[in-house]
Amino acid sequence: MSTQKPSIPKGTRDFGPAVVARRNYIFGIIRRTFEKFGYAPLETPTLENLSVLTGKYGDEGDQLLFKVLNSGDFLKDVTAEDLANDDGRATRRVLPKVAEKGLRYDLTVPFARYVVMNRGTLVFPFKRYQIQPVWRADRPQRGRYREFYQCDADVVGTDSLLCEAEIVLMMAEVLNALGLTDFTIKINHRGVLRNIFQALGGEGKESDLFVAIDKLDKIGRDGVTKELLERGFSEPVIDTLFELLSVSGDFPEKLERLLAGFVTAGVAADHADGYKGLRELGQVLELLRGFGFPQFEQLEFDPTLARGLSYYTGCIFEIKINNVNMGSVSGGGRYDNLTGAFGLPGVSGVGFSFGVDRLYDCLEELNLFPEGAAATTRCLVANFDAAGMTAMLPVLRELRAAGIASELYPDKAESDKQRVKQYKYADAKGIPYMLLEAPEELGVRKFKLKDLRARQEQTLTLAEVVAALA
Amino acid sequence: MSTQKPSIPKGTRDFGPAVVARRNYIFGIIRRTFEKFGYAPLETPTLENLSVLTGKYGDEGDQLLFKVLNSGDFLKDVTAEDLANDDGRATRRVLPKVAEKGLRYDLTVPFARYVVMNRGTLVFPFKRYQIQPVWRADRPQRGRYREFYQCDADVVGTDSLLCEAEIVLMMAEVLNALGLTDFTIKINHRGVLRNIFQALGGEGKESDLFVAIDKLDKIGRDGVTKELLERGFSEPVIDTLFELLSVSGDFPEKLERLLAGFVTAGVAADHADGYKGLRELGQVLELLRGFGFPQFEQLEFDPTLARGLSYYTGCIFEIKINNVNMGSVSGGGRYDNLTGAFGLPGVSGVGFSFGVDRLYDCLEELNLFPEGAAATTRCLVANFDAAGMTAMLPVLRELRAAGIASELYPDKAESDKQRVKQYKYADAKGIPYMLLEAPEELGVRKFKLKDLRARQEQTLTLAEVVAALA
Repeated sequence: MSTQKPSIPKGTRDFGPAVVARRNYIFGIIRRTFEKFGYAPLETPTLENLSVLTGKYGDEGDQLLFKVLNSGDFLKDVTAEDLANDDGRATRRVLPKVAEKGLRYDLTVPFARYVVMNRGTLVFPFKRYQIQPVWRADRPQRGRYREFYQCDADVVGTDSLLCEAEIVLMMAEVLNALGLTDFTIKINHRGVLRNIFQALGGEGKESDLFVAIDKLDKIGRDGVTKELLERGFSEPVIDTLFELLSVSGDFPEKLERLLAGFVTAGVAADHADGYKGLRELGQVLELLRGFGFPQFEQLEFDPTLARGLSYYTGCIFEIKINNVNMGSVSGGGRYDNLTGAFGLPGVSGVGFSFGVDRLYDCLEELNLFPEGAAATTRCLVANFDAAGMTAMLPVLRELRAAGIASELYPDKAESDKQRVKQYKYADAKGIPYMLLEAPEELGVRKFKLKDLRARQEQTLTLAEVVAALA
Repeated sequence: MSTQKPSIPKGTRDFGPAVVARRNYIFGIIRRTFEKFGYAPLETPTLENLSVLTGKYGDEGDQLLFKVLNSGDFLKDVTAEDLANDDGRATRRVLPKVAEKGLRYDLTVPFARYVVMNRGTLVFPFKRYQIQPVWRADRPQRGRYREFYQCDADVVGTDSLLCEAEIVLMMAEVLNALGLTDFTIKINHRGVLRNIFQALGGEGKESDLFVAIDKLDKIGRDGVTKELLERGFSEPVIDTLFELLSVSGDFPEKLERLLAGFVTAGVAADHADGYKGLRELGQVLELLRGFGFPQFEQLEFDPTLARGLSYYTGCIFEIKINNVNMGSVSGGGRYDNLTGAFGLPGVSGVGFSFGVDRLYDCLEELNLFPEGAAATTRCLVANFDAAGMTAMLPVLRELRAAGIASELYPDKAESDKQRVKQYKYADAKGIPYMLLEAPEELGVRKFKLKDLRARQEQTLTLAEVVAALA
């Protein structure tokens, strides 16, 4: 067999032990928070039928789906005529003949599929979380991967705004637990934007407007104005839009001022109790007060928050770590019709997601990973001579029986150089302690326990070693 | 958009909350055991280059690889001539033009690739474990899936038999922790088989012989005899083979008797100290004695154990749960040349793997899943009236602050039927406790804590509720 220099595909990554341990630290906090709030784990297959995936993410999304070649004679239905290239239509003609399956593109569509397939047995409201990788055939670039994890939590089958309030709590709890305490949670409601757009004559063009507003951060007021002018909106209308969007104050003040602005601008109420969006935001605020949520100054009502996804209909969320140059680390919102494409209309729900790669980068930049998050083995038992190896086996057993992750260096050291190798091994693996046989004292077996970081050592009995490390 | 009845690909599975929790229970025990023995986690990408995967699993394996279609215009290099079907060679001609990547087929080849790519920075011996799904385009059938998890632990860069002894310890520890205490660990050494085969004139035909012996369980002595006769071995030779293979006694007795048999049959020693296989098995036994391994009667030296994989060179292991009709739940062995195909010869190591699907089925059949392994939420706070919802928010906060997974039913019950719905929700989710507001007593707020399984209730203060559930 000829040898080859192995590599991994662009946009994918190997995660070595130290990185896995740190990622698991993040996943663990997210998982525990989801579970503490009553969300239960779901896992769906990596492979989904293309009939489930296609058409759910727009044309661009369809392009970015990884498709899996049918097994066996995948060419059996392809003819020479299929290959005739007329404006790239050959690919579209051949694809359904050679590929029936694709890789999971997000966790939302598989969740919707699962809900529909199991609607007969699921008990609603159904609260699930899902932490799994997804794949996108995007052009790889810094911070953008072709294989990456999503961490989603969704509840479907209830309109209760308790869910929205608890999403704020969960977002804050995860970030506080990670030590990322300087964050801002932005909240808005699609109804607020819809109210404004309708008053401005934008009915039917909501998604154009959402897309334009969503870019406000990037292209500024001038850029958005230009886009809206091109789409046929007049300057006075755009001015009113920005006046409403730029309302100032804290959360309750903004709610109040926007309500006054709606009345002034002649925005029509869309609900028996007034404006649905403003009302629901007020209720979420009340629920958070009921919970005693302590971080109100970090919760910002931002009427310009739009978010790209078209399926949101109610509250929308986004969270940013302050003083770190990075996009949002979490976001979500309420939707009315998650499962409509699969023949089950009217399933309302709300969900959100953490971006683990961005959280990882924030923790690294701010040096917030706890020291213990990287190492696994706590104690390396030295293997310094032949008698020592056998003599150390019961020691190893005792340490492990006490739950202390321990290993005996597997090869005997018979020279100083080989002894140094064992210290280097402990250092490279981040093992904090090393244990060596010490001379017996008054007939009692003794050990040297070396704290490799503090560069200190103690002479102890085995029971004392266990107590020191447990 | 037309609606569709969604489905998942054959051979794949959704894992709902109860199943994920039970699978995580198994993964947790395996992971903790690996880490306790100093193995550190590694994760490799789902997508590997086909150049890495192809040719590593034999012709059949190449067929069973899932290949991923190149993105964009995947047909750009395919010509009409490529399609000309001459004995299925079209597929082989077109494949490299349309697919460069495939799905991970096992965890061993990616591990070897990782070791080679990182040889400059890794510190050896390198002990890694890896728990990830793999994909095979096998015909799906009961118990055989196209997407399933493997749980591997390997150590490379050392010949020490300490690793073999610790594999026995880890296998036993995982099964004991799962409650599967009635198991048999079979151990053999490829050297023992090689010694026998060479004495029988089978040199150069070892892998034929391994394959034949490996079927002994299924096709019996007669079947194996027939296969060996067809391969040109004579009856007296086959008789000697079976005489040696059928040696009886406990582990040390078998070692001794086989040694005597080797001498009688004129088997040539392959090592300065005699027969390498027998000698190493004896050393593993000694190491296990040194560890005080308490389950020797469950460790069987089985000279007929061959295992299918061709790359094993030293000790081989297999573990079966007794009194359950199921194949081995774990197996492994030592190899000499894991990374040779990637240009790094001489890397010796030893590894083993657990089959989580089989472990799951054993635990289910023997009813060994602990009760707590299925539920996540511990307490459902009832939502029985409007005032109650707001009043219950601080209660919920207290429970969660104490680490008690809790949820408030998100929709208010305003009728008996709706109240019953909340009990049904708790029941369906396996939530063991329900909390309701009770009348105040002497100015102190009280709650009814219902144990839904025992059908008992207590009237308690919030602090008492927290103490009862924490």
